[in-house]
Amino acid sequence: MIFRQLFERESSTYTYLLADERTRKAAFIDPVDTQLNLYLRLLDELGLQLVYALDTHVHADHVTALGLLRETVGCKTLLGFAGEVDCASAGLEDGQIINVGDIEINVLFTPGHTDDSFSFLVEDRGHGYLFSGDTLLIRGTGRTDFQNGDAGRLYDSLHDKLLTLPDDTQVYPGHDYKGWTVSTIGEERAHNPRLEPDNKAAFIELMHNLHLPNPKMMDVAVPANRTCGLNKNLTGWSV
Amino acid sequence: MIFRQLFERESSTYTYLLADERTRKAAFIDPVDTQLNLYLRLLDELGLQLVYALDTHVHADHVTALGLLRETVGCKTLLGFAGEVDCASAGLEDGQIINVGDIEINVLFTPGHTDDSFSFLVEDRGHGYLFSGDTLLIRGTGRTDFQNGDAGRLYDSLHDKLLTLPDDTQVYPGHDYKGWTVSTIGEERAHNPRLEPDNKAAFIELMHNLHLPNPKMMDVAVPANRTCGLNKNLTGWSV
Repeated sequence: MIFRQLFERESSTYTYLLADERTRKAAFIDPVDTQLNLYLRLLDELGLQLVYALDTHVHADHVTALGLLRETVGCKTLLGFAGEVDCASAGLEDGQIINVGDIEINVLFTPGHTDDSFSFLVEDRGHGYLFSGDTLLIRGTGRTDFQNGDAGRLYDSLHDKLLTLPDDTQVYPGHDYKGWTVSTIGEERAHNPRLEPDNKAAFIELMHNLHLPNPKMMDVAVPANRTCGLNKNLTGWSV
Repeated sequence: MIFRQLFERESSTYTYLLADERTRKAAFIDPVDTQLNLYLRLLDELGLQLVYALDTHVHADHVTALGLLRETVGCKTLLGFAGEVDCASAGLEDGQIINVGDIEINVLFTPGHTDDSFSFLVEDRGHGYLFSGDTLLIRGTGRTDFQNGDAGRLYDSLHDKLLTLPDDTQVYPGHDYKGWTVSTIGEERAHNPRLEPDNKAAFIELMHNLHLPNPKMMDVAVPANRTCGLNKNLTGWSV
């Protein structure tokens, strides 16, 4: 598998490029609209055909490149639930497998940060790669105080789904704000303070006491992302 | 091998942590002084003992953490030439092998960006990892217009040393300013515009015509880095 992690510094977003060496088919996970030309350059230089662009959820902190990528290279766009985001080629479903050449992307429904949060799991040569969006961050988790976030559901997604993966599964998150690029399930189990509460009620209390400011791009990003990033002039989505 | 790439956003510097799973011995390449507490946290959480901190060269754009790491955890510090940087435990030599537990770090002298630039090559499970400092960047190279930089020597370092490595060698640079994290020797040979000139004279002309502004931290960083980052109040180093 060809694999690249790309960093967008304005929102500290990680975007991932996965590609199959044999068929040269490729997918982006969580691409950012301002990086379109860099993505097109990389696809061209590596000789790849983009067949899918996926978002782990409707983002509140940056505008997705899904729409631009679909318009430019004709890939399919997948995110959230069928019908909720008009511009998506299709929604995602728990247990679904997305084929990118010989690569199988396993879709895990992991709500809690938002009600439409998914994670993606790929196995390559015995190694597990988890693309955890904002469900599981390195030494943290996504917040749960908007976009129908729910701390109880996040607790279940973390403990009943992601933490059941093998310890050596590589964790590639949707963001990191301290410059760390990767972790493992075992490492997060041992050292992530958000995974310390050993019951759901304590986790819910921890999350409810965070009192975080709203993401600075939220009022623009959420409505724009419901059009796959193609219309940035929408307003009216209220927190 | 335990391997982590870490990003310092102020100077877009990549720092690398290499560690041996069996002995838990570890080395940092190009650590940044402001990140010390994050490094100590990561070493502690992963249960690692830092035995070496290495700089690829005396940096002009950030202050090294070599001195702080040596003071804090007692590691050895290696960079440049013996005697030129008083604070280093020892200098580096072309062809030298640095043992970090079972990991062998092969030292390559690759002058040109500066007269004290080295690269590091590690083999792990059939994969080559090249830590190329500012000698080879992703789709670029370091500049050659200060610190005894020399475009002709950089041409030789690139073509006679780094480009002789196998195409699938992973290239981990000292910086990236567009959010790309890794490349390969084959990819750089095919797509790096600085590698297009097919003779030394054309490369020297290309480099001499760049007319880049000085790095903003240069007047602080270079003298400070000659004390391994322990004295930031030195002045008097002129460009």
